[in-house]
Amino acid sequence: MPKIVDHSERKSNIAEATWRVIIRQGIKGATVRNIAAEAGVSLGALRHYFSTQHELLEFAMNLVKERVTARIVDIMQSELPPREQIMKVLLELLPTDDSSMAEMEVWFAFTFHLKTGGQRATELNDAIYPLIVQIIDYLDQHALFKQGLDKDDEAERLYALIDGLALHAMLEPDRMNKQRVIRVLNIHLESILV
Amino acid sequence: MPKIVDHSERKSNIAEATWRVIIRQGIKGATVRNIAAEAGVSLGALRHYFSTQHELLEFAMNLVKERVTARIVDIMQSELPPREQIMKVLLELLPTDDSSMAEMEVWFAFTFHLKTGGQRATELNDAIYPLIVQIIDYLDQHALFKQGLDKDDEAERLYALIDGLALHAMLEPDRMNKQRVIRVLNIHLESILV
Repeated sequence: MPKIVDHSERKSNIAEATWRVIIRQGIKGATVRNIAAEAGVSLGALRHYFSTQHELLEFAMNLVKERVTARIVDIMQSELPPREQIMKVLLELLPTDDSSMAEMEVWFAFTFHLKTGGQRATELNDAIYPLIVQIIDYLDQHALFKQGLDKDDEAERLYALIDGLALHAMLEPDRMNKQRVIRVLNIHLESILV
Repeated sequence: MPKIVDHSERKSNIAEATWRVIIRQGIKGATVRNIAAEAGVSLGALRHYFSTQHELLEFAMNLVKERVTARIVDIMQSELPPREQIMKVLLELLPTDDSSMAEMEVWFAFTFHLKTGGQRATELNDAIYPLIVQIIDYLDQHALFKQGLDKDDEAERLYALIDGLALHAMLEPDRMNKQRVIRVLNIHLESILV
């Protein structure tokens, strides 16, 4: 009887191996050779699933999006008060530990691959801006959004703040550590909330 | 008599050619071959000055830093009122036309090269955070900084906002156009100024 191979599981395993390599060695270590070794598959097997490093990063990146989305859905379905719920959702968009730092590095690497490939990185960023717009709406519906502020402007401002904090947490981690990220985010929320 | 070659001028000419190529074709077009053609020098001559694409980008990047610094010094020495002066300085840090968009792309590409090379991009970012700290101090000295706010926190928040806006202006230019950048920046300044 031929061996039954679950291709989707194998691809996920390779993506998981990609994450472990990135967490340990950064994006620069995420070569197909290193990843194949980490996943315990041959280079040929890896290339069967992902013919280029770009494809592999894209798959790993989509895995990030799925995971972040799942975590956010969980938070939104929880019984937390709206203010705490929103803070937790926003923290999901920021690198605050090794795992989310690795996610951020893949996001950054992949966005850059698309950009240098001449494409707009809209399919990646697409997801975040509408989420921020929803968050502002949610705050407004719960009568938490400060009167006199413009929802559209404040969505844009919060979105820029989040991505700026994410960038600095990744590039300047000595100064911009987790405590500082939370502190700045809290100050900003205070300024737009009732 | 041997031909006298001004090496520093020739390097600047090559860097200028690099900019023109980036403005026209994006970072992806900034190959040594394309740049040599644009500068009107042989590949051998270009390699004499810059042995790798990394070196060339680094030189072009430093040229950005020098130019941005020179423009900021000019603005700070002008007779504009402090509020307008600061707005102009902050806009120098954002991509608002083809030329500053190209600068931003080189900054992004280069930061990424360093990051994937395992280095921290501190030498690049170094310049911006202290500048933002100075701006907040300057506003405070001119009694423009809102009482009750913390200078350290507000420097960090403004810095994150600036880089987030820059990132979005580069990656999502259809939505985040120049008018929108200025609008969000103005709203933020209003919120921290008297």
